[in-house]
Amino acid sequence: MAKEITSREQDYSQWYIDIVQKANLADHSAVRGCMVIKPNGYAIWENMRDQLDRMFKDTGHVNAYFPLFIPKSFLSKEAQHVEGFAKECAVITHHRLMNDPNGGGVIVDPSAKLEEELIVRPTSETIIWDTYRTWINSYRDLPLLINQWANVVRWEMRTRLFLRTAEFLWQEGHTAHATKAEAEQETLTILDIYAKFAEEWMAMPVIKGIKTANERFAGAVETYCIEALMQDGKALQAGTSHFLGQNFAKAFDVKFSNENNEQEYVWATSWGVSTRLVGGLIMTHSDDDGLVLPPKLAPTQVVIVPIPKPAAEIDEAAEKLMRELKANGIRVKYDTDMKSRPGFKFAQHELVGVPIRLGIGSRDLANGQVEVARRDTKEKSNQPIDGIANYIIRLLDEIQQNLFDRSVKFRAEHTTEVDNFDDLKSVLDSKGGFVSAHWDGTTETELKIKELTKATIRCIPLDNESERGACVLTGKPSVQRVLFARAY
Amino acid sequence: MAKEITSREQDYSQWYIDIVQKANLADHSAVRGCMVIKPNGYAIWENMRDQLDRMFKDTGHVNAYFPLFIPKSFLSKEAQHVEGFAKECAVITHHRLMNDPNGGGVIVDPSAKLEEELIVRPTSETIIWDTYRTWINSYRDLPLLINQWANVVRWEMRTRLFLRTAEFLWQEGHTAHATKAEAEQETLTILDIYAKFAEEWMAMPVIKGIKTANERFAGAVETYCIEALMQDGKALQAGTSHFLGQNFAKAFDVKFSNENNEQEYVWATSWGVSTRLVGGLIMTHSDDDGLVLPPKLAPTQVVIVPIPKPAAEIDEAAEKLMRELKANGIRVKYDTDMKSRPGFKFAQHELVGVPIRLGIGSRDLANGQVEVARRDTKEKSNQPIDGIANYIIRLLDEIQQNLFDRSVKFRAEHTTEVDNFDDLKSVLDSKGGFVSAHWDGTTETELKIKELTKATIRCIPLDNESERGACVLTGKPSVQRVLFARAY
Repeated sequence: MAKEITSREQDYSQWYIDIVQKANLADHSAVRGCMVIKPNGYAIWENMRDQLDRMFKDTGHVNAYFPLFIPKSFLSKEAQHVEGFAKECAVITHHRLMNDPNGGGVIVDPSAKLEEELIVRPTSETIIWDTYRTWINSYRDLPLLINQWANVVRWEMRTRLFLRTAEFLWQEGHTAHATKAEAEQETLTILDIYAKFAEEWMAMPVIKGIKTANERFAGAVETYCIEALMQDGKALQAGTSHFLGQNFAKAFDVKFSNENNEQEYVWATSWGVSTRLVGGLIMTHSDDDGLVLPPKLAPTQVVIVPIPKPAAEIDEAAEKLMRELKANGIRVKYDTDMKSRPGFKFAQHELVGVPIRLGIGSRDLANGQVEVARRDTKEKSNQPIDGIANYIIRLLDEIQQNLFDRSVKFRAEHTTEVDNFDDLKSVLDSKGGFVSAHWDGTTETELKIKELTKATIRCIPLDNESERGACVLTGKPSVQRVLFARAY
Repeated sequence: MAKEITSREQDYSQWYIDIVQKANLADHSAVRGCMVIKPNGYAIWENMRDQLDRMFKDTGHVNAYFPLFIPKSFLSKEAQHVEGFAKECAVITHHRLMNDPNGGGVIVDPSAKLEEELIVRPTSETIIWDTYRTWINSYRDLPLLINQWANVVRWEMRTRLFLRTAEFLWQEGHTAHATKAEAEQETLTILDIYAKFAEEWMAMPVIKGIKTANERFAGAVETYCIEALMQDGKALQAGTSHFLGQNFAKAFDVKFSNENNEQEYVWATSWGVSTRLVGGLIMTHSDDDGLVLPPKLAPTQVVIVPIPKPAAEIDEAAEKLMRELKANGIRVKYDTDMKSRPGFKFAQHELVGVPIRLGIGSRDLANGQVEVARRDTKEKSNQPIDGIANYIIRLLDEIQQNLFDRSVKFRAEHTTEVDNFDDLKSVLDSKGGFVSAHWDGTTETELKIKELTKATIRCIPLDNESERGACVLTGKPSVQRVLFARAY
């Protein structure tokens, strides 16, 4: 029941956990740091995946699949990459179990030690660029525009369902190009896809920006990102798109012969979003009664509840309405549970975030109307049953837009310009959100501010205006503001 | 070029490898036993996955995702399961790498040894039933009809692209039921879905049957399967559906309270098909010129080749035709390559198995016709351009049916009844295929026959007629014939 959800005001972290667990989205597993994505949560991820997949394919990308395992030595080949990823990871050292001769169950067979340890992929640049070496010979083999949907593992010490787990699901694009300009363009094309998906599908406004050198992906020349703002005023990095230059081509010796038959190193990008987006979706829209989902990603968009329970004439009206809605591509369900009372059902459908609930009783039918309840505003109204399908189709769009608009409004109210360090700190400590401030451009200052405030530079927004100012910490000159925030 | 493919007659194994590699379906990777599924191969798997997923959902199943890792001790909980799966598997013993203090790159950090080793899942019954314990309390929680699309790892010594690899992609269904009858029905419902998918989508005829005790899944009470026949006369197990009884419920203590409020163990099934199906698809239909794909699964169903190369009036006719075909849901491409000659393109499209190729030249247009080439029969004909879209739609159905019919015919010609051991052996040594013979029902005889002939009992067909006879090896009484074959 929705009643059991901790309120956001009382304890935001517990509120998040309550929603994830009580709406049956995910749960912890017997394996440390790994989550089980339950059917309700997986259905949201499937809708995200399907739409992103369409957007990737519409821009010429194809899917492939590369090995789960990476030879340990591959990680060492790109100097920065190894620093970033050869740390906490799952290491496979043996390939066989055996019965314990002392009767203690199964044990690792010491004779089955691998010559070289394998790492469960934390990201696949190394194994993919090792493969690309054999695929790319000539400019005619380029560009390679490949994406992979996969699981990856990073041995995180502190985990949080969806937001940070040891194993997570994601897509990772890895493209290869003949020119620097083309690879840079690809990086931005994907950033635009991510931003469009976040805003138009998740109804989650994002800021497109560039990461500072300190926050850059290990092995990248430039990391672009989309940053969102959660209801507790903390930022969430929702997706990254990396321009890798020729770093991986050089590390794995991937060259092509250009049109003049000269050998050149290949230019690369990589980019990814993950099941973390489900966490972002939850935290952007949900309320103290449970999950709130944007209609475009809701596994069930409309639920019809018979009042007080299924009956012949109500069933008939519901079936007719379902046919009409399904014909319009709307995901609709009829709640045929005979045992629960309407009030219980209402709370359950609110908890799992169904955008529209229709209540139909015999008296409603006699009056030629149905009760329409919106999940986002909790408004209820009686609507004529004639033309109700069209009304619902319009209302789903309206709900989608409303969720986006109110998130944009929230972000605007939680973005503050400050011009000195005390203000930076006090805004972060009070209302949180994005704080726009001048910074002298050095990693040293960035780290010092992080140490003092727990806030990081989320990004340098792409649409930044140049503005001369003084760094809030050092007073040194700055040419533009950057966005600070505490982040997930 | 298709010319480089070894003929089936010359070397069937090499023919298979040539098709997989030259049609860019998959390749070996730097990691022993793991394959890279290339875009052409992955597109076929995506089409398979999408259709199977629709069929599972249409029968009430939902998707979820469980951890990649399984604690070592879980494998020991089901006595038979541990024998089958706690052997060759990837064992994770550490969770961190570190820089070698002696400068030798990265090494395993000895201080990061796991208390209990983790196994990369070879199949997920154990981790899933451990989870179900917390999900199932009452009969109202049942049935649970859950499927997972995932990667799994079995450390195979001898690998073959798609057919047997250390890592492969699959779906694994894991359902929980209140009664034995319901679980048995589920097992058969899935077997029917697998058979329907194999026959109607892959155009690959299959025999539905029951595995002998010896070939049963480790931990199952009964294993059902679909068995297909490849062009070299070897059988391929294409999918399995297991009735698990209460074995896993007992091993993981999963009980529910029934309507009388009594505690009972839950009944279970599990079932799976994998990327092995891509191997089966290749070997069922392809020929010495390359891949042959059934239209329903072909990533590209129709390719339009301009003769001799793109030109304004041909482009215009092609665009119009593509619009018509796409409006009918047909996957069509226009070959706009300016550099290659038509003959080269024809061979390429044949190699990758596009079911229909249309050749359009200026003279064709003047004559109001196009050249239609079928991949399955290699027949070419000139067809009027008026109404060509409808002709193509019908022809795709005809090709799908023809591939199925000719595979049924091949199987019929390669299924032989024998009544003594010499005939069993000589049929297996000469034409191969399925050999229908009497067997005394003992594992001992089954293993002896395997030792003498390299053939296994593929299944006891579900539609078997009872027929009294004598075992071909022992002469002991038998009540029905079973199907022997050498198998992949």
